[in-house]
Amino acid sequence: MAKPAIPKGTRDFTPEEMAKRNYIFNTIKDVYHLFGFQQIETPAMEMLSTLMGKYGEEGDKLLFKILNSGDFLKDVNSDDLQEKNINRLAAQMCEKGLRYDLTVPFARFVVMHRDEISFPFKRYQIQPVWRADRPQKGRYREFFQCDADVVGSNSLLNEVELIQIIDEVFSRFKINVAIKMNNRKILSGIAEIIGAPEKIVDITVAIDKLDKIGLDKVNEELRSKDISDEAISMLQPIILLEGSNRDKIATLKNVLSASETGLKGVEELEFILDKTDTMGVRSQLDLDLTLARGLNYYTGAIFEVKALDVQIGSITGGGRYDNLTGVFGMPGVSGVGISFGADRIFDVLNQLNLYPSDSLKTTKLLFVNFGTQEETFCLSVLQKLRKEGISSEIYPEAAKMKKQMGYADSKKIPFVALVGANEMAEGKINLKNMTTGEQTMVTVDEIIEILK
Amino acid sequence: MAKPAIPKGTRDFTPEEMAKRNYIFNTIKDVYHLFGFQQIETPAMEMLSTLMGKYGEEGDKLLFKILNSGDFLKDVNSDDLQEKNINRLAAQMCEKGLRYDLTVPFARFVVMHRDEISFPFKRYQIQPVWRADRPQKGRYREFFQCDADVVGSNSLLNEVELIQIIDEVFSRFKINVAIKMNNRKILSGIAEIIGAPEKIVDITVAIDKLDKIGLDKVNEELRSKDISDEAISMLQPIILLEGSNRDKIATLKNVLSASETGLKGVEELEFILDKTDTMGVRSQLDLDLTLARGLNYYTGAIFEVKALDVQIGSITGGGRYDNLTGVFGMPGVSGVGISFGADRIFDVLNQLNLYPSDSLKTTKLLFVNFGTQEETFCLSVLQKLRKEGISSEIYPEAAKMKKQMGYADSKKIPFVALVGANEMAEGKINLKNMTTGEQTMVTVDEIIEILK
Repeated sequence: MAKPAIPKGTRDFTPEEMAKRNYIFNTIKDVYHLFGFQQIETPAMEMLSTLMGKYGEEGDKLLFKILNSGDFLKDVNSDDLQEKNINRLAAQMCEKGLRYDLTVPFARFVVMHRDEISFPFKRYQIQPVWRADRPQKGRYREFFQCDADVVGSNSLLNEVELIQIIDEVFSRFKINVAIKMNNRKILSGIAEIIGAPEKIVDITVAIDKLDKIGLDKVNEELRSKDISDEAISMLQPIILLEGSNRDKIATLKNVLSASETGLKGVEELEFILDKTDTMGVRSQLDLDLTLARGLNYYTGAIFEVKALDVQIGSITGGGRYDNLTGVFGMPGVSGVGISFGADRIFDVLNQLNLYPSDSLKTTKLLFVNFGTQEETFCLSVLQKLRKEGISSEIYPEAAKMKKQMGYADSKKIPFVALVGANEMAEGKINLKNMTTGEQTMVTVDEIIEILK
Repeated sequence: MAKPAIPKGTRDFTPEEMAKRNYIFNTIKDVYHLFGFQQIETPAMEMLSTLMGKYGEEGDKLLFKILNSGDFLKDVNSDDLQEKNINRLAAQMCEKGLRYDLTVPFARFVVMHRDEISFPFKRYQIQPVWRADRPQKGRYREFFQCDADVVGSNSLLNEVELIQIIDEVFSRFKINVAIKMNNRKILSGIAEIIGAPEKIVDITVAIDKLDKIGLDKVNEELRSKDISDEAISMLQPIILLEGSNRDKIATLKNVLSASETGLKGVEELEFILDKTDTMGVRSQLDLDLTLARGLNYYTGAIFEVKALDVQIGSITGGGRYDNLTGVFGMPGVSGVGISFGADRIFDVLNQLNLYPSDSLKTTKLLFVNFGTQEETFCLSVLQKLRKEGISSEIYPEAAKMKKQMGYADSKKIPFVALVGANEMAEGKINLKNMTTGEQTMVTVDEIIEILK
């Protein structure tokens, strides 16, 4: 038969990879808990009526749809079948799909559980999502998202806490990061004062090129986007915005003095900077006007995190949004959230070799199996070690020494116990340190002390 | 718009349910680790070529199939479309399906990673599986399996270790269980000596009714299944098998003396009983010949676990099998495995109210928010508590007292900190114990001591 394979864009995780991934997920979970966030989970399958239309036309195409069980042609329109109208047929043959992100299922969860939830609701969720994207390096069809959101509170303290969480998580990972911040209201204010609200993206894209192409070319690009000379001249202090976050804020207050929305955005940013200062956030915080992620979605703060010592895209992002649940008939629920990019964090930790050695720990001790009598002796010792919480095992049969040592090696077991007739007579164990090669005769109590 | 819903047979998990589920999964994981098992994960989607034909015709129907992305009618045969041949069409429109269990993906994993794995391979896997079964109480279309297997070793020590794992897990849960054991070879031996190998299931089903219907009716049922009088007479000591496990073994040795296979099965059982005795397994072990799960699959030991204090089906099961990976072109890999039924264990723990209180812990302390000045004071204390690893939070805005206390209540937060002008002046915190209602003025250091 043909060699088995897995669907493209999906992955198996080996024990070593799982240990690393668990280290990442557990670190993030611990910090979420420390800040009072609670975990939820939602089903892998959602009704397509929940998912369709939430991610744009392109997103709809990337949904994995599940064929109805039984006679899936039962409700299919004959004309559609004749004409091979795949969009209409898919809708008639499939009522379920795999979740595409954690935000829409979360919104659905909030609506369905509104009577059990006490707001503000601080939830986190770490689960896989599926997208029928073209697979490429670092982009998968099944990948995990690690989201935390606070919904039902407009307080900016929530933004501050999420930044503290980002800071604490990357500090535990020992990854140096810059947390970039912007505010949708500032971008709206800029568009407002130059009278071109539809040009926000063109403007941020052009400004983003300043370092590479210089001021003249940026202005040229703006002109090519039909932005008036007057507007471009008003934009100069914003394009050239530099200095500390405080300097930038002073300039923005000046430039945006005529825009109430813009000033509100600056004020929000200032509050967040003040509070994170007071709370001793260690990561570098950068006010960055070119940060324009999720413009269709975010209404206030926008965050993005860059690793400083590795060339890689954003490793965390988020922002404030209005009306999470309006599409499901429950208006007025706003919130703010972040999402850690577990796969990219995995790559960064690998590249910088930052996994703490005890995060990869496996069995601590293997008893070599020399035969029935020795086995019985070893089993009683093994039992004592396990009672003490020490992960340990015995090779299940008296195989060749080389095979047993190879097993210990490949499993990266740090200690091996060799028990033969002499050891049994003495009631001791010959303990071999697999890193140094050193062998010592020890008692059970001594082993426990060494391995604990 | 219509109220959102989730697909039938699937579930959301609220924070409280997640805490309970995490307690279950973490307990099982800890014990698996203690015994040297390593975690793997496989994708939710497998190729249908991997899944189809592995679970019988009925199983094939219960697979959730995923519509191919893009033009799913591209490779569809026009005649099949005309004739609405749903089986052939499904195969042409879908190349992927959701995994149905963890065993087939594990077999596929072993084959694909054979060069990285060192055998015996002790793996565990805790992931959801999906089946298009008719949903009913306690049966879901998405549910978790918690499997551990040792493959590539014929040693019976593996069976002994899996029983120790079962014993340790349920001892940690404080659930009293009986571990029922049988051996496929004993059943084969019985069939052999009465010369009716195809009657095994009829025989075990009939014997199972002894308590309810009595010996005469059991014999009558056997006769109705075309089992000869001579054979029924040979079966009498087996039907009436009673006493201790040792008594039963003595009888079986006698009855099966002419069957090499049968005696081998008895010997295996005896070895397992001897070793688990020596290793001090606390759970009741019952040799039960009516245990006949997975007869198409298991070749040696068969296990099943019953909770003693709750009326519920089997909560764990497993056994030894041959040739896990033969269907994927890799012969000779035998193994033994168990699977904990997380959903039923959840029900048992709920019914017996056995969740340890600290397993459900959430935020330990909520700071009530009285306004800007108090907030600033509280934030600095909050930071100190979190540095000490104490899960704590502040209500994000100065809402009405009743609302804030209601939040603490619904989140089951055990302590609330009330900080007003007096407290700030004294540099102390008014700490309210939400269980007793008691309030005390304490310093930050005292809070840390109380909450740690």
